[in-house]
Amino acid sequence: MARNTFGNVFSITTFGESHGKAIGVIIDGVPAGIPLTESDIQFDLDKRRPGQNSLTTQRSEADKAEILSGVFERKTTGTPLCILIANTDHRSGDYSAIQNVFRPGHADYTFLKKYGLRDYRGGGRSSGRETAARVAAGTVAKKILRAHNANVIAYTLAVADIYAQKVDYSVIEKNPVRCADLTAAEHMIKKIEEARLAKDSVGGIIEAVVHGCPAGLGEPVFDKLEGLLGHALLSIGGIKGIEFGSGFQAAKMKGSTHNDKFYLDGDRVRTTSNHAGGILGGISTGEDIKLRVSVKPTSSIGQLQNTVTTNLENTTIAIEGRHDPCLCPRIVPVIEAMIAITLVDCLLLQKTLQLPPSQTPEL
Amino acid sequence: MARNTFGNVFSITTFGESHGKAIGVIIDGVPAGIPLTESDIQFDLDKRRPGQNSLTTQRSEADKAEILSGVFERKTTGTPLCILIANTDHRSGDYSAIQNVFRPGHADYTFLKKYGLRDYRGGGRSSGRETAARVAAGTVAKKILRAHNANVIAYTLAVADIYAQKVDYSVIEKNPVRCADLTAAEHMIKKIEEARLAKDSVGGIIEAVVHGCPAGLGEPVFDKLEGLLGHALLSIGGIKGIEFGSGFQAAKMKGSTHNDKFYLDGDRVRTTSNHAGGILGGISTGEDIKLRVSVKPTSSIGQLQNTVTTNLENTTIAIEGRHDPCLCPRIVPVIEAMIAITLVDCLLLQKTLQLPPSQTPEL
Amino acid sequence: MARNTFGNVFSITTFGESHGKAIGVIIDGVPAGIPLTESDIQFDLDKRRPGQNSLTTQRSEADKAEILSGVFERKTTGTPLCILIANTDHRSGDYSAIQNVFRPGHADYTFLKKYGLRDYRGGGRSSGRETAARVAAGTVAKKILRAHNANVIAYTLAVADIYAQKVDYSVIEKNPVRCADLTAAEHMIKKIEEARLAKDSVGGIIEAVVHGCPAGLGEPVFDKLEGLLGHALLSIGGIKGIEFGSGFQAAKMKGSTHNDKFYLDGDRVRTTSNHAGGILGGISTGEDIKLRVSVKPTSSIGQLQNTVTTNLENTTIAIEGRHDPCLCPRIVPVIEAMIAITLVDCLLLQKTLQLPPSQTPEL
Amino acid sequence: MARNTFGNVFSITTFGESHGKAIGVIIDGVPAGIPLTESDIQFDLDKRRPGQNSLTTQRSEADKAEILSGVFERKTTGTPLCILIANTDHRSGDYSAIQNVFRPGHADYTFLKKYGLRDYRGGGRSSGRETAARVAAGTVAKKILRAHNANVIAYTLAVADIYAQKVDYSVIEKNPVRCADLTAAEHMIKKIEEARLAKDSVGGIIEAVVHGCPAGLGEPVFDKLEGLLGHALLSIGGIKGIEFGSGFQAAKMKGSTHNDKFYLDGDRVRTTSNHAGGILGGISTGEDIKLRVSVKPTSSIGQLQNTVTTNLENTTIAIEGRHDPCLCPRIVPVIEAMIAITLVDCLLLQKTLQLPPSQTPEL
Repeated sequence: MARNTFGNVFSITTFGESHGKAIGVIIDGVPAGIPLTESDIQFDLDKRRPGQNSLTTQRSEADKAEILSGVFERKTTGTPLCILIANTDHRSGDYSAIQNVFRPGHADYTFLKKYGLRDYRGGGRSSGRETAARVAAGTVAKKILRAHNANVIAYTLAVADIYAQKVDYSVIEKNPVRCADLTAAEHMIKKIEEARLAKDSVGGIIEAVVHGCPAGLGEPVFDKLEGLLGHALLSIGGIKGIEFGSGFQAAKMKGSTHNDKFYLDGDRVRTTSNHAGGILGGISTGEDIKLRVSVKPTSSIGQLQNTVTTNLENTTIAIEGRHDPCLCPRIVPVIEAMIAITLVDCLLLQKTLQLPPSQTPEL
Repeated sequence: MARNTFGNVFSITTFGESHGKAIGVIIDGVPAGIPLTESDIQFDLDKRRPGQNSLTTQRSEADKAEILSGVFERKTTGTPLCILIANTDHRSGDYSAIQNVFRPGHADYTFLKKYGLRDYRGGGRSSGRETAARVAAGTVAKKILRAHNANVIAYTLAVADIYAQKVDYSVIEKNPVRCADLTAAEHMIKKIEEARLAKDSVGGIIEAVVHGCPAGLGEPVFDKLEGLLGHALLSIGGIKGIEFGSGFQAAKMKGSTHNDKFYLDGDRVRTTSNHAGGILGGISTGEDIKLRVSVKPTSSIGQLQNTVTTNLENTTIAIEGRHDPCLCPRIVPVIEAMIAITLVDCLLLQKTLQLPPSQTPEL
Repeated sequence: MARNTFGNVFSITTFGESHGKAIGVIIDGVPAGIPLTESDIQFDLDKRRPGQNSLTTQRSEADKAEILSGVFERKTTGTPLCILIANTDHRSGDYSAIQNVFRPGHADYTFLKKYGLRDYRGGGRSSGRETAARVAAGTVAKKILRAHNANVIAYTLAVADIYAQKVDYSVIEKNPVRCADLTAAEHMIKKIEEARLAKDSVGGIIEAVVHGCPAGLGEPVFDKLEGLLGHALLSIGGIKGIEFGSGFQAAKMKGSTHNDKFYLDGDRVRTTSNHAGGILGGISTGEDIKLRVSVKPTSSIGQLQNTVTTNLENTTIAIEGRHDPCLCPRIVPVIEAMIAITLVDCLLLQKTLQLPPSQTPEL
Repeated sequence: MARNTFGNVFSITTFGESHGKAIGVIIDGVPAGIPLTESDIQFDLDKRRPGQNSLTTQRSEADKAEILSGVFERKTTGTPLCILIANTDHRSGDYSAIQNVFRPGHADYTFLKKYGLRDYRGGGRSSGRETAARVAAGTVAKKILRAHNANVIAYTLAVADIYAQKVDYSVIEKNPVRCADLTAAEHMIKKIEEARLAKDSVGGIIEAVVHGCPAGLGEPVFDKLEGLLGHALLSIGGIKGIEFGSGFQAAKMKGSTHNDKFYLDGDRVRTTSNHAGGILGGISTGEDIKLRVSVKPTSSIGQLQNTVTTNLENTTIAIEGRHDPCLCPRIVPVIEAMIAITLVDCLLLQKTLQLPPSQTPEL
């Protein structure tokens, strides 16, 4: 129940502040014998890294992953993996502008209330930078999922009021917003640029799909897949909502429509629709798992905002510096990572629940 | 990490199937000395109980709470509370209609995939009846919250396409949909009755507010309040989405609007708006916590639906019997209970994080 | 991390006080499809039950197990089992003699310091009666172990200064001290009777052996088998020490003697001795697991003892009533149960650690 | 429940192999505001470090602690501490002598059975080196304990058949065996030197005492202090037994002797003896906690031993290189660390169990 740990049999524990020496993750419960190199992790980290293009912050963190333990001769050993990502660009110089001021939309005030003190150098533990550790762990999880024929894909569905009109996976990595619709992507980019020039920011929606998830994952009561995935994704900074399948639209539907009818596809049981988003009674059906999350507009903006100081005086603040005007593009790989981590945990746990007949007691 | 346990220092473990002998809950980590009687619990259970009025199923479960342990001379002792609710109306007679058929929208198919066998008598572990155990535990949690001056209130915000236009707490318990707007409630009732007569069902939206939640609850990374509350509420059967504060609307907002500006209210730091829903960086701000969940239309409907049998043959099914045509009214108390349980866990955990100066080492 | 829960993927949560309505256990993580009836559990419970013979307390608790959930058509369903044992003989009448006095050797004083109040009716949560719930859970665990060809056997090795001189499993259930040596048993019985007549009590040592434990159980660091089994057995009231293999004798041995040398028995790797007690590096070797625990003399004795009252006055107390003059015979089945529960947890967890080649990613 | 995590609200997660890049620990749940520097940690690490004197291995690991996170301006921030200890002396060169052979007394064979593969470079995850991470975490725990007026002291009580005859804390750090009796220490040193010259090793016993532990720590059932401390200490490599208070001697005692009688010391309730080792019903009494652990003779010895190869052929092996002929001196600081970590976890957890009257609901 460590507060910085997520997962049960496959679990990740993260540490590190944005302006400390390093951030990192320990992955416990990784099955032995899984091929893994630092390049595998770097491939995913590069998708989350700052400075990829004009839409993302121009900080130049290299986000270089180093495996400190748990891998021998390029294979996992079953012991905990520690992956370290050094903070190379912390520029610990000048925080006087934010040291004594509560930035609106940030955790400055709540940290002080929670801990009685705070690391005032940037976001600290609350920085988006923390998610790099999750992405590194996601590499391992995605490998295990793929070996079970399951794949997680996420993409930007909407930015401000612009929605993608189609889903073409092949273009996701070909546009800087990670949208699955190139035309919509162009409009989104324009919106984001406008916000950036206005020293403002915009929000959006990310959609994720899991193809090939085995049926039977998730638990019937507290650890319903919706609960676990909700926990996983709502724990990402900036995510303020999540819905599965028809989600909030389900509120307006009739049962006769919303119920996905079963039919036979050869000898496989399938459903004619997927309003449930691939989850019934909290357990995966084998249909695509489908979900969407709401991403708030970036809190760090250059516009002047009213606020108060730590000494309880009224003041104003404009957040200078290098910030993403829209969080979606760089959250996409984090979403994929957290979904993969959650599902692998369920997948491994499920192996404890049905014993082979030879290991089952007789009457 | 037991799968039927929720919470860390204040945790609940539930058990029981809809058609077994009983359901129940063990509450661990209850501070000693809290006054508690069976009547306290019964008061809350009666709100969730079937057969309250024409909108809810006419099953006549008494849902009588019995405290088996953890209370002595009407006070909690610090040891685990076991609260038992006997199943008096299970009528184990005739399940032939559903024994070999996968009911659309239900967990029949996924249970079989998960466990290799299933209790085919009604919903089993997956039944909404399981939530009675949560409500019983919620009584204890709400008592502790109130002693900290915090209150949880939930109500039906929408049924189908009908939304409440105002929020008047005083009328929530005065209408059978538990809506905070009497006029809207009348329209909602009509919608639900129409669905019932058409052997169909409708969905809805429930809103919840926590007044007086102390600042500082929740953790900065995985156990953000959004993550914990998301886990808690998405683990309730039928909930397919959750949003905090502006939620999915945040996707369309600018940072300059969405950021809640801090101001001084005497010597208390407050915000001029509450788009964040009372949570910044995953930690409570002291403003109202505000969230909404989406409730799918009841899966059990009398209309004929296509489906398949456990022997993999096409068939049709109509779910006879007594079912709520809209889940919202009876989920409202479950929502309140799960929010209270989650917050008390955070509240107690927070007591471990700031030591009084006399117990803090010196430099 | 609930305090009344033990185990990870196979976990037990117990509740109940000696003089409340009932005690019981929830077992979570039981694989589906395991045959189980109330008689199976009763068979084990009867070994722990009071009033078996002249050596044990003459209280006449029936200790009747009732399965409330998790079993359908005589098989486990994968959902949590709740097993209830009603307290039929609590005789809540007269506690005036102990209500305001701290009994030496008991938890009266420490409970008051811990909780600020206490259930003064007998041992409450701290009563040996609590272990009945563990024995009930042990039935399920032992079934799973046996299907993996593993068996747990415990017996009284010593009472006071009388040690068994041989180990004959066939006589364990044929003498009231559960000793594996009938001649020693007779001497032990005499010692115990002498103590009883002198209104005193005696201690002893219990030995346990696990035959057929698969190699590979336990974890290399914190969850070494010694750590897990130590936790499990030292959590039984009255146990004040544990040792594995040569245990405390190892302190006096040379490495050249203590090291168990490997040899080939056909194609099976075995050791020529077993000083390690079947555990190397915290992980089972496949040789017999062997351990011993020290059992303190019963705290409840009829002799007059000095003590103080809850009002902080000096006083004396003699504990009247029905108490076992030696705890060993009735702790034997509890030891077996806790070992089985611990090993099944390891056994199931191990299934998550080595994936079949078809589910392992390729380089 | 991560397997490499120990503790509940104050928890440590360790990682690293003896011949990998680094080992380390994440400490979660550290209260904010505790002064901490790398020198504080180094002070304790130096006690466990190899090469201290002629009795310990001559490897020259610097064991330099680096704090990567969780400390700001020399105080803990409430976020997870990561402490890294680089492996500077791993000499990854030549493992051909042990790569394909199961060393007697080591985890080589059990690792292969558990994981299907193993890091054959020395002890890997199973190396005693892993305990450096625990000692680093212990520094933080001991600071918190001291601020609560509690102190943990451990020392070598016996080496082979030589027992300390008195306890003088002031000499523990003045002799290389960390014995509390200088005369006995000299005999112990001689015994150890003899063993070293004979290419052999010796075992011993370590005793630990906690002064000033507050009453009320520990839980009445599974998390009895004996269970938690047993888990903590039996998880240290080489420890094969543990006993509390009179421990295994209690087996031979009468209840009338073993029961510690209560008396009044001013208005403090104390006991005239301490056979219980400061723990009653699993909960601390406020008297000294007293325990002893058995340490097996070092497994790595230079004598020729029979064994088998990974290819299942009979062979012999002599373990060359630098090994401690007696583990006791360097385990002493590990024992202190693990006791402190365990007690701080209990101490913080206890803060959730008794609410101040102002936060307790009224009847």
